[in-house]
Amino acid sequence: MSHNLLKGKKGIIFGALNDKSIAWNVAERAHEEGAAFVLTNAPIAMRMGSINELAEKCNARVIAADATNLEDLEKLISESMEILGGKIDFILHSIGMSPNVRKGIPYDELKYEYYHRTLDVSAFSLHKVLSTARKLDAINDWGSVVALTYVAAQRTFVGYNDMADAKAILESISRSFGYIYGREKKIRINTVSQSPTLTTAGSGISGFDKLEDFANRMSPLGNATAEECADYCVTLFSDLTRKVTMQNLFHDGGFSSMGMSLRAIQQYEKSFRDCPPIGEDIPFDEKDVEKFK
Amino acid sequence: MSHNLLKGKKGIIFGALNDKSIAWNVAERAHEEGAAFVLTNAPIAMRMGSINELAEKCNARVIAADATNLEDLEKLISESMEILGGKIDFILHSIGMSPNVRKGIPYDELKYEYYHRTLDVSAFSLHKVLSTARKLDAINDWGSVVALTYVAAQRTFVGYNDMADAKAILESISRSFGYIYGREKKIRINTVSQSPTLTTAGSGISGFDKLEDFANRMSPLGNATAEECADYCVTLFSDLTRKVTMQNLFHDGGFSSMGMSLRAIQQYEKSFRDCPPIGEDIPFDEKDVEKFK
Amino acid sequence: MSHNLLKGKKGIIFGALNDKSIAWNVAERAHEEGAAFVLTNAPIAMRMGSINELAEKCNARVIAADATNLEDLEKLISESMEILGGKIDFILHSIGMSPNVRKGIPYDELKYEYYHRTLDVSAFSLHKVLSTARKLDAINDWGSVVALTYVAAQRTFVGYNDMADAKAILESISRSFGYIYGREKKIRINTVSQSPTLTTAGSGISGFDKLEDFANRMSPLGNATAEECADYCVTLFSDLTRKVTMQNLFHDGGFSSMGMSLRAIQQYEKSFRDCPPIGEDIPFDEKDVEKFK
Amino acid sequence: MSHNLLKGKKGIIFGALNDKSIAWNVAERAHEEGAAFVLTNAPIAMRMGSINELAEKCNARVIAADATNLEDLEKLISESMEILGGKIDFILHSIGMSPNVRKGIPYDELKYEYYHRTLDVSAFSLHKVLSTARKLDAINDWGSVVALTYVAAQRTFVGYNDMADAKAILESISRSFGYIYGREKKIRINTVSQSPTLTTAGSGISGFDKLEDFANRMSPLGNATAEECADYCVTLFSDLTRKVTMQNLFHDGGFSSMGMSLRAIQQYEKSFRDCPPIGEDIPFDEKDVEKFK
Repeated sequence: MSHNLLKGKKGIIFGALNDKSIAWNVAERAHEEGAAFVLTNAPIAMRMGSINELAEKCNARVIAADATNLEDLEKLISESMEILGGKIDFILHSIGMSPNVRKGIPYDELKYEYYHRTLDVSAFSLHKVLSTARKLDAINDWGSVVALTYVAAQRTFVGYNDMADAKAILESISRSFGYIYGREKKIRINTVSQSPTLTTAGSGISGFDKLEDFANRMSPLGNATAEECADYCVTLFSDLTRKVTMQNLFHDGGFSSMGMSLRAIQQYEKSFRDCPPIGEDIPFDEKDVEKFK
Repeated sequence: MSHNLLKGKKGIIFGALNDKSIAWNVAERAHEEGAAFVLTNAPIAMRMGSINELAEKCNARVIAADATNLEDLEKLISESMEILGGKIDFILHSIGMSPNVRKGIPYDELKYEYYHRTLDVSAFSLHKVLSTARKLDAINDWGSVVALTYVAAQRTFVGYNDMADAKAILESISRSFGYIYGREKKIRINTVSQSPTLTTAGSGISGFDKLEDFANRMSPLGNATAEECADYCVTLFSDLTRKVTMQNLFHDGGFSSMGMSLRAIQQYEKSFRDCPPIGEDIPFDEKDVEKFK
Repeated sequence: MSHNLLKGKKGIIFGALNDKSIAWNVAERAHEEGAAFVLTNAPIAMRMGSINELAEKCNARVIAADATNLEDLEKLISESMEILGGKIDFILHSIGMSPNVRKGIPYDELKYEYYHRTLDVSAFSLHKVLSTARKLDAINDWGSVVALTYVAAQRTFVGYNDMADAKAILESISRSFGYIYGREKKIRINTVSQSPTLTTAGSGISGFDKLEDFANRMSPLGNATAEECADYCVTLFSDLTRKVTMQNLFHDGGFSSMGMSLRAIQQYEKSFRDCPPIGEDIPFDEKDVEKFK
Repeated sequence: MSHNLLKGKKGIIFGALNDKSIAWNVAERAHEEGAAFVLTNAPIAMRMGSINELAEKCNARVIAADATNLEDLEKLISESMEILGGKIDFILHSIGMSPNVRKGIPYDELKYEYYHRTLDVSAFSLHKVLSTARKLDAINDWGSVVALTYVAAQRTFVGYNDMADAKAILESISRSFGYIYGREKKIRINTVSQSPTLTTAGSGISGFDKLEDFANRMSPLGNATAEECADYCVTLFSDLTRKVTMQNLFHDGGFSSMGMSLRAIQQYEKSFRDCPPIGEDIPFDEKDVEKFK
């Protein structure tokens, strides 16, 4: 259902690969809410995914751009303003990639040229987008920028590797630039820290399914889906959240504020028990719930 | 402009005193967005304020209740369900009062019976509302509860006294109960940490105007107003933020993420200068902006 | 081995029950490091424990005091100064008790008189100690106060009940009073957030052993023991940490900064497997370590 | 006065330039406490400073090394082990430099090759030191690594530029590597977030004096000095803090936990007043203190 929350608003959405992508879902919801926007992704990503399908659905144009390349970004933003007929109101940054993770290089043996590349793609790209937009005076006053991040910026998750550092600096960039763009143009910049989500990117991480299960049992509301994340981003692009800036906003069903839940510790407890044959459930003891409350 | 974000939703709003109150503004906006609700405040507060005017405007019923009194709360919630024709979808908790502050008792000499009273009114009241609602099964699945708080829960502000401790425990209660109500009924509970706001409550704090000026200069977007806070609360009551829970959400123009802004340090610097006569401004040096960027 | 870190320093240590108590261990270490101090606990606790044994070992006097009773505290602090021959340099606050937890009342059904009592014993007691000490001018400049807390103040742990709220307000009191006592007398006040520790108090919480196991596997250095906590407290009482104040200091082997460790997720993974008979270990696959790094 | 806290311990200290440097002070204190260590700095820094004077005082060897160069680091660490006769117990990382800051390039116009350089010098250098040490198995079990940082990693300070991002990722690296080195060798890695300090590096930042004044008035204990920081680092290198890891530890007189102090707001208030001639103080009103408490 549409609320016309983004009626008349113009945007650029980075990072839609396929219908599992958070950016894809944001595009669909932004379209429903009345926004016009340009979709963009790296040339390679565009070949792998199905972004044109999304573009058609949303009546949006697609412009290929390498978000680490300043010329590409300048072209993207200039053309977007032309296509959309004016300045931009919102930007979604949903970009992350680590060559170290891809090549299975452990964190303690990082290749530093890859490490720089991880940051360039996953974090500096946000700075470059903002810097280019500012140079072109491309964002309207009270515009809104959202970048997607993960709680690994605050707490260490095995296997998340140098992406943790990339997310930490991404959040710092949001604050640093949020201050400058805020005082100048009232533009707000926030990060949304999303539950582990089964996107194409997420599913590449080994052990991801168990981590997702754990996060789900820890979170009182369960993990947040890509669709729900899109809903949340819509509120952040709308005029109803104008004084929220420089924040890292957890959209995770409560995970970030949990130390231990009943569901997670009960599952954990099973790991120590004499197990029944697969397929049978360990009998659940109602009293366990009571005692834990 | 209405987006029908709360169409069909039912709520209870605590703490509207007069048109400066955040709760007052939330009521007006919730009404615009299609919600039906009951207004409530303590009997004394109702005599001092003009809540009936608001009720008329919003086509809402008013029920007096002492939020520290379980019987009052049970009556309030039961009657609200009757009046509204079903379970509740959202609750705003905007309640705070410290007898120590009122009587000018400094923090290091707190009277402990007043201290207990501060917590009872400003924090336990939230627990009591939630506990009573839960007992009566009064909140729909995926309902949303918001309590207003202040950054003094994280950092010490001179003069804020035992209200800092009250806000710290209020935020803890939101997490503790948010876990339980989340796992049981998918109900989310968050706190909104608002800029210093010139409500009737806020204006009672001595030195408040200078603090407000400082916060305003520190915040890249300036302080958030009560109206803007109401907009934000509307998004949190809507279905678009269903997976946000147990969070403390800063709605403060960026203040909480600032260490020092150009505007604040420039003002601060003036305190050391040889000052021109009152009324004349210290000449502003453009280069100062450049060097600081 | 002694480093004479507390040579000539005088203190008061609250909360030593038996040799599992953190306060007990702090007393032993403070004695080794050259401090003289008074031990205190509630009259009931003194009957249950073996504090006199500790007193003898440490050449310390014991004074019974209910830490919620201002007269008791005034007597305790006055007498301590007499016994020790001057003002106090350090205080350890290791006090916590929840009647709601003791009586198995779940968080959503808290008895509010018990809730007030939980706060009175576990948090206001710190305020009362500080307020009384200040009134009597009982602490030397650059004195140091440490109160023990738990990460449940930041994140919700099932079963920790209203003690989470008590620890949240305890940490707030440390900041609020730390500001005042700091500006006046350079006295610093910090909280130490300790791993789950098998004290007599800790062992009363149901499900504690599994939580402890989980915390231990999550923490790269394993859980911190009471002995190690005592070492840490010694550094905080020493003159080497004079500018650390109003902080919550995690002493937990890294737990608070972990999202997921290899050891914890491997154990968690076992809960989903077809298990071998009890006593046999699931074969450990070296490659699992590699892939996760 | 020495406590022999580091007796028999071996270390490497990065970043001592002159007697204002924190690293210089750490070296002096570590020497007093019985440690043997190697001093190192970049070749250029060594020419500018007076490190040899320090080396003589501390009976330490100096090895020049570019901390961004893996070969230099391997040579440094290997030679250090030879010189010191065994594995290392502690490392101090006090390295930071931004070409963008040096050249006065504002944050919104960062040169990206400089930005990479800022991170390489100020943050990746820590990763490289740790990675090299781990490859050479150069650190004893329960060793301790400390890196110096600043609160700009959490909150934006005008003028701190890309150093804020560098400190944010430095703290993330400490956590990420702290997890790995902790589980393998019980080695702990922490950052110390120090008050603004008038080192040669710090004094290069424009407007630094006013910021330092503000921080000093905000902090109940005043800003922490380099000497005091050295004391604190000694405790972190000692065996008394073995279970503290992956933490960011504020050593700042309380600044990080302050929202507004009486001293700072009183100074701020002066900026709005009709000022007396320079040199005369604004009369101080005792009652102001009372009302604020």
